[in-house]
Amino acid sequence: MTLYGGIEGGGTKFVCAIGNENGDLLETVRFPTTTPDETMGRALEFFRPHAEELASVGIGSFGPVDLNPNSPTFGYVTTTPKPGWSWADVAGPIRAGLGVPVGFELDVNIAAMGEHRWGAAQGLDTFIYLTIGTGIGGGVMAEGKLLHGAMHPEMGHVLLPHDRAVDPFAGACPFHGDCFEGLAAGPSIEKRWGQKGASLPEGHPAWELEAHYVALGLVSFICSLSPQRIIIGGGVMQQPQLFPLVREKVQKLLNGYLQIPAILEGIDSYIVPPALGGDAGVKGALALAFASTGSGL
Amino acid sequence: MTLYGGIEGGGTKFVCAIGNENGDLLETVRFPTTTPDETMGRALEFFRPHAEELASVGIGSFGPVDLNPNSPTFGYVTTTPKPGWSWADVAGPIRAGLGVPVGFELDVNIAAMGEHRWGAAQGLDTFIYLTIGTGIGGGVMAEGKLLHGAMHPEMGHVLLPHDRAVDPFAGACPFHGDCFEGLAAGPSIEKRWGQKGASLPEGHPAWELEAHYVALGLVSFICSLSPQRIIIGGGVMQQPQLFPLVREKVQKLLNGYLQIPAILEGIDSYIVPPALGGDAGVKGALALAFASTGSGL
Repeated sequence: MTLYGGIEGGGTKFVCAIGNENGDLLETVRFPTTTPDETMGRALEFFRPHAEELASVGIGSFGPVDLNPNSPTFGYVTTTPKPGWSWADVAGPIRAGLGVPVGFELDVNIAAMGEHRWGAAQGLDTFIYLTIGTGIGGGVMAEGKLLHGAMHPEMGHVLLPHDRAVDPFAGACPFHGDCFEGLAAGPSIEKRWGQKGASLPEGHPAWELEAHYVALGLVSFICSLSPQRIIIGGGVMQQPQLFPLVREKVQKLLNGYLQIPAILEGIDSYIVPPALGGDAGVKGALALAFASTGSGL
Repeated sequence: MTLYGGIEGGGTKFVCAIGNENGDLLETVRFPTTTPDETMGRALEFFRPHAEELASVGIGSFGPVDLNPNSPTFGYVTTTPKPGWSWADVAGPIRAGLGVPVGFELDVNIAAMGEHRWGAAQGLDTFIYLTIGTGIGGGVMAEGKLLHGAMHPEMGHVLLPHDRAVDPFAGACPFHGDCFEGLAAGPSIEKRWGQKGASLPEGHPAWELEAHYVALGLVSFICSLSPQRIIIGGGVMQQPQLFPLVREKVQKLLNGYLQIPAILEGIDSYIVPPALGGDAGVKGALALAFASTGSGL
């Protein structure tokens, strides 16, 4: 059986897996994202015993990343605020260390690929996979293709209405202060309320406010991209009270302007968690690996 | 020579033209958008003497429109606040009256097609054509295809930061109040300052504020869509002082986060007026007509 490698390289943790073309995960390892050398070293350690059997490896990395195959920094993380990772080569060490073709994408794009192939976006051609956790990022499939454009979307950095009378928190994005990520990612929740989101009770006003910002972000994406569905993963969205609140607020904010039945009548299946749960990314990395077998780097 | 018909159906005026496959306009007529019956009647009157020579007609209509060919209201304007035009059939009367294949698209999408074929977006695969006039709307080409998704983008209705201490104007959108269109379209400028934008002098604070909102909208679109270029047409953008102000503010708001050379080093050719000027829409309608010859409705 042909085997493939998948890497979901997040800003907090890396997940590496060996799988087959049905998306079955045969072996998996998770470890924290430390320095680039150490982290890529641990990934190589995991794959090396199987190097002979691997047809290719797909990597989805946290961003921003360079996705331009003609660029000298293709396969790099670029201007991240994450210490040590600015202009770090992610694809290079894997390609050199294993001698196999390597596919490289943004982490949210591979999660979108995973959901498209086996999850909540099967049969759709325009949808968004959004993650709200340590940061906020989004992958977009537009008319059947992953959207790169000039680089790739950076959906966490849209600017939103921010009523400082209601929420005086200035925002935590080092580049933009109170952009979507600066207001609504996990670290912002923690800074605003003085404790981690996971420890805030379900009825805490933090969740109403969080749902408000998520809904504002979604309205921006709906108006810009007209998605057929929005899938939202990430640690913050593990709070089960958020989905109903977000759906309700999106409908209120849009106020019936968009005659899209999926929004007007089917919002519960329009804004959904990933069907693959926490495996969307690493399974998508396998899907990317299949796609990369021939072309290779 | 094969001739084609093009209709740019705007909320304020209609432009109808007969042209060839080089985009040459052989005959053109412009008239105000009044009632659907009268307006579509005038369009038919213009084309009818040439009905025998026309291979097809392309129509770009103001939105929102129904672009789903399987829908009973395909070719209609849907929920517009424009009096009389809610659920008005635009494609039907042309198809029935001329007996030729008819292509139907959103007005900003045909302008994007025109700029892609003959204008400022030649050779690009991901870009935005935005218009700022009576309303604000945007057409998106994403990875080589016009973006429809669930319906089509409605870029004028993204929600933006609005500092009421600086700008107490509540916004003029009947659906959303202070969305992008509610803050920055022509009628909003007029309501805020008590006179039409065209009569405000170049150094009036209106333009600094207008450029601020346009820049906020563009940042939202850049983060969501990662366009390779943004083309902005429409009456408001006829103010020549706006382009330099908008470019400067976009760079300041993004604050170097996105490592996109076109933005960091080439902003003057990243945010541009339409190369086809006021003809982008009607020439795009011709391009749509060519594309519709075979398939037809």
